[in-house]
Amino acid sequence: MKIIFLGTSAAVPTATRGLASIAIRRGGEVLIFDAGEGMQRNFLLAKLGINQKMKLFITHMHADHCVGILGLLQTMTLLGRNKKLDIYGEPRLHEFISQNIRVIKFGLSFNLDIHIIDKEGVIVKESDYQVSCCRSEHSVPSYSFSLQEFDRPGIFNVAKATKLGVPKGNLFHKLQHGEDIIHNGMIIKSVEVVGPKRRGRKIGISGDTRPSVELERFFANSDVLIFEATYTQDKYQNAVNTFHSTAIEAASLAKASKSDKLFLTHFSSRYKDPSILLDEARTVYENVELAEDLKTVIIPYTR
Amino acid sequence: MKIIFLGTSAAVPTATRGLASIAIRRGGEVLIFDAGEGMQRNFLLAKLGINQKMKLFITHMHADHCVGILGLLQTMTLLGRNKKLDIYGEPRLHEFISQNIRVIKFGLSFNLDIHIIDKEGVIVKESDYQVSCCRSEHSVPSYSFSLQEFDRPGIFNVAKATKLGVPKGNLFHKLQHGEDIIHNGMIIKSVEVVGPKRRGRKIGISGDTRPSVELERFFANSDVLIFEATYTQDKYQNAVNTFHSTAIEAASLAKASKSDKLFLTHFSSRYKDPSILLDEARTVYENVELAEDLKTVIIPYTR
Repeated sequence: MKIIFLGTSAAVPTATRGLASIAIRRGGEVLIFDAGEGMQRNFLLAKLGINQKMKLFITHMHADHCVGILGLLQTMTLLGRNKKLDIYGEPRLHEFISQNIRVIKFGLSFNLDIHIIDKEGVIVKESDYQVSCCRSEHSVPSYSFSLQEFDRPGIFNVAKATKLGVPKGNLFHKLQHGEDIIHNGMIIKSVEVVGPKRRGRKIGISGDTRPSVELERFFANSDVLIFEATYTQDKYQNAVNTFHSTAIEAASLAKASKSDKLFLTHFSSRYKDPSILLDEARTVYENVELAEDLKTVIIPYTR
Repeated sequence: MKIIFLGTSAAVPTATRGLASIAIRRGGEVLIFDAGEGMQRNFLLAKLGINQKMKLFITHMHADHCVGILGLLQTMTLLGRNKKLDIYGEPRLHEFISQNIRVIKFGLSFNLDIHIIDKEGVIVKESDYQVSCCRSEHSVPSYSFSLQEFDRPGIFNVAKATKLGVPKGNLFHKLQHGEDIIHNGMIIKSVEVVGPKRRGRKIGISGDTRPSVELERFFANSDVLIFEATYTQDKYQNAVNTFHSTAIEAASLAKASKSDKLFLTHFSSRYKDPSILLDEARTVYENVELAEDLKTVIIPYTR
């Protein structure tokens, strides 16, 4: 699994940072969180694939998080996508897309399934992962998302099982899934031939929000938390007034949620050098980095 | 007067070229032609000024020419514009802006006057210039634009007029505006004290179009013609099918219209190096250059 930041500026783009968008590539699929204006450019540069299996999640319907949907859909059409695209967001997402397709009159070369989010909980459940949403605290209806992989059985030691005389088939399956067996009058324990369970990874994405106890719970034990850090602490009142977070608040929430690693993103364009946000965050939480446009992060199994 | 190219790619942005947008700065005002997705980024980098007197013209309502309006309006609001903004385009422009303002719910910090273009002719007349439109040949209703400065009187040689004994006031005014006068029994000719008339400059902007005789007339005697050159000549049939022009067609039209200088823009993203378009254009017309994002061109008085 890898994370590729496609846009890391808040509200207004800068010379080096486009508007909000994050891609996660895992298991042959691309999951995109937010599509700020112009994100298709980094999407193309990152070579994420026009015709990949793909889902797009929109945290909220502010222009700097959703306007890029239009260009992305059009470019996918121009470049010949034919696989269905699933897109998730609050009710106005449907109106935004359908009105613009009608007014700008652009056809799509693929089916677009718009899934309206109207409550918290699991919104996508695939065989090996799920995506959940939690209301965030912003000036318009907005959601944070988490991607949670399901735990997988440990690695099965085929050679050892074969050496113990276990035949392939049903008994292999039982051992792999944690059952002890009796074979040729001998007890063979699952733990003898199966490594420790591989814990699924969890990635949290805040969208725009004030910090909250709900989000602290929602992001509990994330392998990676990507949290907005619009402001330095001296602009705390701006953060409160505009329903955003400071870098220190993001770091405090990462710590409180026992997340392993924090990426700060969504920086106010007033910070020519956002390393001041990193410095502030480090005063409360060590394992933190700044997101950069097109920065790619490989997420290993760590627990 | 200077021209600043804000986006020069057709349909899909590339690493170095954003979507269609051209700015002209003259006399304390900024005129912008088209606003493809993401153009606000180069608009900000070019430091054109958030609160300038400004007019925005949209050639047609394809996403790659109009989606950038939304981000531009929002950024202007965030950065505190308070001067009225005039925007010109075909009827769907009004629907595009009003629907998106309603759905994405973004307020504006300034008045927006949307002027609907429904016929050819002069659409803006200021004291020193006018902007006209002409239907272009594209797959949707679309317009080309021309900016025409009015001729100005020649430079008045105050010292010489004074030396000839002409008093300031009415007689100055008459001489300045081409009238000969009799003063102290002496005939003084306007041409003795006034330089040659300064011809206004004319800039033509094609938008997306097939070449046509109408456009050749419309762009007649331009100082600068900015014409789309989506394709090389071997893709002539693509140009016909998609209502675009080849570089050679753009050059031929520049030549036929007796334009002084041609800039090619709106290059298909298939051309990693669009200099092939320049080479082709040069086979029929010498004074031609490629537009580049953020390239700035000063337009002198040349005639």
